[in-house]
Amino acid sequence: MAKTKKKEEPIILVTNDDSINAPGIKALVDAIKHLGRVVVVAPDKPQSGMGHAITIGHPLRLQKVSFDYDVEAYSCNGTPVDCVKLAVDKILHRKPDICLSGVNHGANHSINVIYSGTMSAAMEAAIENIPSAGFSLLDFSIEANFEHSKKYIEQIAKYMLKQKKQKCFLLNVNIPAIDATLIKGIKVCRQANAKYEEDFIERTDPHGKKYYWLTGEFVNFDKGKDTDVWALQNNYISVVPVQFDFTDYKLKTQLEKNLK
Amino acid sequence: MAKTKKKEEPIILVTNDDSINAPGIKALVDAIKHLGRVVVVAPDKPQSGMGHAITIGHPLRLQKVSFDYDVEAYSCNGTPVDCVKLAVDKILHRKPDICLSGVNHGANHSINVIYSGTMSAAMEAAIENIPSAGFSLLDFSIEANFEHSKKYIEQIAKYMLKQKKQKCFLLNVNIPAIDATLIKGIKVCRQANAKYEEDFIERTDPHGKKYYWLTGEFVNFDKGKDTDVWALQNNYISVVPVQFDFTDYKLKTQLEKNLK
Repeated sequence: MAKTKKKEEPIILVTNDDSINAPGIKALVDAIKHLGRVVVVAPDKPQSGMGHAITIGHPLRLQKVSFDYDVEAYSCNGTPVDCVKLAVDKILHRKPDICLSGVNHGANHSINVIYSGTMSAAMEAAIENIPSAGFSLLDFSIEANFEHSKKYIEQIAKYMLKQKKQKCFLLNVNIPAIDATLIKGIKVCRQANAKYEEDFIERTDPHGKKYYWLTGEFVNFDKGKDTDVWALQNNYISVVPVQFDFTDYKLKTQLEKNLK
Repeated sequence: MAKTKKKEEPIILVTNDDSINAPGIKALVDAIKHLGRVVVVAPDKPQSGMGHAITIGHPLRLQKVSFDYDVEAYSCNGTPVDCVKLAVDKILHRKPDICLSGVNHGANHSINVIYSGTMSAAMEAAIENIPSAGFSLLDFSIEANFEHSKKYIEQIAKYMLKQKKQKCFLLNVNIPAIDATLIKGIKVCRQANAKYEEDFIERTDPHGKKYYWLTGEFVNFDKGKDTDVWALQNNYISVVPVQFDFTDYKLKTQLEKNLK
């Protein structure tokens, strides 16, 4: 009987984009390790801003590594999306029951869903029909405090484990970096209409050639109180359900009349 | 008078993900070079599959290079998205009137919109409120024939130059690699529900360690006749309007009741 029970234990794939050594992924595992068989497959180096990049031009490697909480873990030389693909095909040899990505060191609300390796890993799993979520804490620091995040991550993971029948289930979860007592709870939101105004820093190298560092200022054009940016500013944990049919149906109707 | 007229000439930013040396980007410039001042800013090496990656961890470089048709051109050591950001901020010092990306060597229909550097560059421009389009030919070959694509690219670019007032205007254009006489015209479509079934090729290096090459089989789950995959299979040029609010509004309604 014990054997049968173990077989039924859900498999939870955990990944991130800050690398397998980031404190955030350890906090994520700590929050959910009692909910099933946890398998970590994460990049061997930071992959922030990699978006939905996949590795085509060179081979991928997997290495079994030790990980906190005695959890099965592998580092990968590829992108966060590569990690998910390899985990399903070469480590688990089946789809996990859910996939959790993060906890990212830094925000991934609004338009960040496009640039974020954390969210791209979760989206890749969702494309595979695996209920998935990316978690991000609004603190870039390596010393970020993830403690207050854990009970919400557990709550969301438990909810996700019940969503097996859902065809597409993908969440972008952002957590304010504030004292636990100040958090008002979870708020389901839409993606705010916000973006970065680029401002490259221009420098000159010792050989007289120019080079540029990408920087940018975050600008929120969205006055709505139903957005992730609003929720986070008001001490809520924001949960944006995400989908990947990018068709602009409104523009489609317009073009059908005018572009032939 | 002549001077005033030149000032009013639209600026067309051209980029791609196959690198500034790819035949596809030359075909694109050839198709639209008479429509305005064309400025090319493209990666210095192939960046296929880079998705919406941005370069954070190392500095970016731009180099002025010679290009066919006596067009102003720069190569960049970053991703396709970096190229667009740098072009706007450091080369043009203003937003171009339109941004065209491609012509990609290979298809970018359906779910490829997520992985494609070609489409991510166009999406980045669209986030900046620049009417944008990514063009892809269904032929991966370096010797691909882009001739029949040119008149459709020109037609779409001309239409786009009239769309300045449109807040978000982003097109994913795919072109069948067939004889010009067989093409039935342009068809405005939705993104097909299709994906890749991964199948990594496993090999062993001379030191006895395993490595993996990403491969995959394309699977179309979508029976609709209004999709890009259907259009291409039926000798149409597919045009999918794309947007970047990824919120899943249907799931949002469901979660609002159940996740608190």
